[in-house]
Amino acid sequence: MEKIGVIGGGSWGTALAILLSKKGYEVELWIRNKAQCDSINISKENVKYLPGVIIPSNVRIINDLERVVKNKDILVLATPSHGVRNILINSKNYIKSGQIIVNVAKGIENESLMRISQVVNEIVPKSKYAILSGPSHAEEVARDMPTTVVAASREKDIANYVQDIFMAPKFRVYTNPDVIGVELGGSLKNVIALGAGISDGLGYGDNTKAALMTRGIIEMARLGEKMGANYETFAGLSGIGDLIVTCTSMHSRNRRAGILIGEGKTLEEAISSVGMVVEGIKTAKSAYELADKYNVIMPIAEEIYEVLYKGKDVKNSVVNLMLRDKKHEMEDIAKILNNEW
Amino acid sequence: MEKIGVIGGGSWGTALAILLSKKGYEVELWIRNKAQCDSINISKENVKYLPGVIIPSNVRIINDLERVVKNKDILVLATPSHGVRNILINSKNYIKSGQIIVNVAKGIENESLMRISQVVNEIVPKSKYAILSGPSHAEEVARDMPTTVVAASREKDIANYVQDIFMAPKFRVYTNPDVIGVELGGSLKNVIALGAGISDGLGYGDNTKAALMTRGIIEMARLGEKMGANYETFAGLSGIGDLIVTCTSMHSRNRRAGILIGEGKTLEEAISSVGMVVEGIKTAKSAYELADKYNVIMPIAEEIYEVLYKGKDVKNSVVNLMLRDKKHEMEDIAKILNNEW
Repeated sequence: MEKIGVIGGGSWGTALAILLSKKGYEVELWIRNKAQCDSINISKENVKYLPGVIIPSNVRIINDLERVVKNKDILVLATPSHGVRNILINSKNYIKSGQIIVNVAKGIENESLMRISQVVNEIVPKSKYAILSGPSHAEEVARDMPTTVVAASREKDIANYVQDIFMAPKFRVYTNPDVIGVELGGSLKNVIALGAGISDGLGYGDNTKAALMTRGIIEMARLGEKMGANYETFAGLSGIGDLIVTCTSMHSRNRRAGILIGEGKTLEEAISSVGMVVEGIKTAKSAYELADKYNVIMPIAEEIYEVLYKGKDVKNSVVNLMLRDKKHEMEDIAKILNNEW
Repeated sequence: MEKIGVIGGGSWGTALAILLSKKGYEVELWIRNKAQCDSINISKENVKYLPGVIIPSNVRIINDLERVVKNKDILVLATPSHGVRNILINSKNYIKSGQIIVNVAKGIENESLMRISQVVNEIVPKSKYAILSGPSHAEEVARDMPTTVVAASREKDIANYVQDIFMAPKFRVYTNPDVIGVELGGSLKNVIALGAGISDGLGYGDNTKAALMTRGIIEMARLGEKMGANYETFAGLSGIGDLIVTCTSMHSRNRRAGILIGEGKTLEEAISSVGMVVEGIKTAKSAYELADKYNVIMPIAEEIYEVLYKGKDVKNSVVNLMLRDKKHEMEDIAKILNNEW
């Protein structure tokens, strides 16, 4: 039976460790904080991040990074995205050549603007990388709600292997070769979800939020295409699927943070109230800079960036987005069809 | 100032009549039921379909079809979709040549499998047709929530004219030449929304519903492409935008009917409880037949059809959809990229 190390005991890492242990794999879950690790070992529950869910006794909860990393068939990276680089630096001496790394963190590094696959490739170049992403709130996966995700890897056999490892009756895994598209979808949707939350927090309705989400996926795909992703990936589970769940579910921290900001809370108050990492806040900065670097128009990402980082008044932000003077629904369609019209 | 006749005083017809009257147009709203028409004339409120919203006194509420149809610059078709044919037959003698007809009904005729534009073209061939569609719950438009829609017409100047007529500060109208795509998006999303409601009613989570919606828009687009629509239209406001709002909002009758069915109510009980036309129920039949006619695989539409019309047990329907043995995320992407992978 495969040995799997899950690096990071947030809600998602914990839920995946439980899922994998139920399939019979030997699972070790690394918890950074010693006191929390001890507490979970006693209570068999991750009270802070996944309350109410029993962790089976065959998930070993371990505070020692070396032990969790060494001699594993698969390593699952489940830390916040901005923690990935340090974790890899601290564990690279224990990572074997050809190690399969499955990343489930969603974000784009600030400053370097690197996706997680690029960070992994820089620090552990001899590893084999896959990303698992899609509409999959940990709280629901842990409760066996039917869930679908995508396993993306440049190498088909790695994608198929990861698919087999994670596949379960209520957890369906599809493969996709488009690593860039899957990584960008999972990361950028958190920025749009902040916007959707802001719209909700300002008291706007479902019409407004649906418009924002529709525009959102289009600007995500536009950037993605410039960065080498397939446009179609954004129409799939890791694109629009994940965007939908993140913008409409109360499980979404990014949406909840947006709601608080829309209601007039400061960024710091919102972060502190949510109490977990809100990936979209850092990703908004990276998205803003990527839009600039690749010369792509991303009105929502730019508006969110200015609200979060430039003190722009949130009250007008959503309406600003609605009143942009574009007249055709999508420039691309209009262009394609102009001759016939 | 333009004269506009709105045919049908459901929630959407009423909301649009109010919107247009606020822009200063002369608006006449046809209410089929005499008693209801008289009641609205006294109370200035459409208590049954749009409670709590005052109808401005410059909207004339009229029971006489001939008077509302005659001598108008624009006719807005706002009846349930299966009522459109009869309304047109009853009013075609009053409809002038070149009449601009803006359809806002969403459905596909049973038996004939015709879209509304085809019905209009058959009965009033000398009219000019446009469709207005998008994520736009009447309850929110009537309360001035920022909303975006698409005006589609084969003739560019008609689309632009309709855009100008309806455009308001909080009601943004975009143009699109793809009449087929916009009509199919608005109609087929009601079928998927029934499925989303069933998933909710069965107690499944946001992950499950997001998966269903993602699959849903893909099968809608697949049928659309075969029928001559542009695939990209389904990525826009009248496609994924409208699907999102219909599957996630409690304003959606189709979703509410689905929830009741998922909870174990019969189809008749669900219809009676919602108390308004649930377009998706009839459209499910048309969608099923269109899938067959155009030889397109539409697993969700087929499943919904069998639950609604063939007495298939609803309990397993959502899980059935999840367990289909497709392994690639999207066959199309996999095909395109197979050589590189």
